Amino acid sequence: MTLQSTNSETNQTLRNTPYDQMKIGDKATYQRTLTEQDLILFATVSGDYNPIHLDETYAANTSFGERIAHGMWTGSLISAALSIVMPGPGGIYSGQELKFLRPVKLGDTLIVELEVLEKNERRKNALIRTDVINQHGKIVVKGTAEIIPATGDVCVERVHLPNVSIEGM
Amino acid sequence: MTLQSTNSETNQTLRNTPYDQMKIGDKATYQRTLTEQDLILFATVSGDYNPIHLDETYAANTSFGERIAHGMWTGSLISAALSIVMPGPGGIYSGQELKFLRPVKLGDTLIVELEVLEKNERRKNALIRTDVINQHGKIVVKGTAEIIPATGDVCVERVHLPNVSIEGM
Repeated sequence: MTLQSTNSETNQTLRNTPYDQMKIGDKATYQRTLTEQDLILFATVSGDYNPIHLDETYAANTSFGERIAHGMWTGSLISAALSIVMPGPGGIYSGQELKFLRPVKLGDTLIVELEVLEKNERRKNALIRTDVINQHGKIVVKGTAEIIPATGDVCVERVHLPNVSIEGM
Repeated sequence: MTLQSTNSETNQTLRNTPYDQMKIGDKATYQRTLTEQDLILFATVSGDYNPIHLDETYAANTSFGERIAHGMWTGSLISAALSIVMPGPGGIYSGQELKFLRPVKLGDTLIVELEVLEKNERRKNALIRTDVINQHGKIVVKGTAEIIPATGDVCVERVHLPNVSIEGM
């Protein structure tokens, strides 16, 4: 089974994959493109206003050569993939390992790839591979997540977020 | 050495702790309180609109009893602490392990506690304990980070973020 989600998500309903229906080898993807708005919103919500993410001139004089995403923004995409695609609503996120391998730059399109690696019948949890690949096919973040999926069916209406605006943009 | 940062950060300048000046046992803290705005901004920037974070009525009928923070929001505070407090600007964030132990609820005040656990002279990197504690003294997230601090002094002006507004709030 392979599930997919992109920026242009239009589903009105979120459905989960219950623990018993999850199979080793099941895959899912989730896609987002990094925008300037993302850099500002992530700095605002985390308090991380390091200029490497926000100041074009400063970033141009570093080894990265330009502004880069906060590493945990990429982490947040993994979390979103687990929360809304597989296993979806009703699951409990219990752990995550991340290796930040390459920088993510403005306009980069990332695909989170999830794959069920292991299931633990006693704990009713699953180990999921959570790699994030850019538009050049390079892995930017490598890792694994531990999730306790819901045991039953969960079907919820998606929440419509209020508009968020950034002064001057 | 112990460094501190809170929501009401007023420093205009960010200074780093270079690799050679970092000592095993050095500590730093970073504090934030979860607001309703944070829930909406984090959902917006990650695309994770799972109702457990956003819908009061839905969340009331789950085992959590109320809306909870995205686990990676707490992760983003760890990233902010490493980025602006210790080791600060110029460092490279290369890895993070997270165990999500307890839910974070609206109004919870979290303190990220950083402590240098190990230094690797060959790789010039450091292993840092990254625990997050709530206002009741309970650990909500437990983990470690791998960081490559800058080798020299880095001193940068902090970036002033534009105002972000949420419709209807």
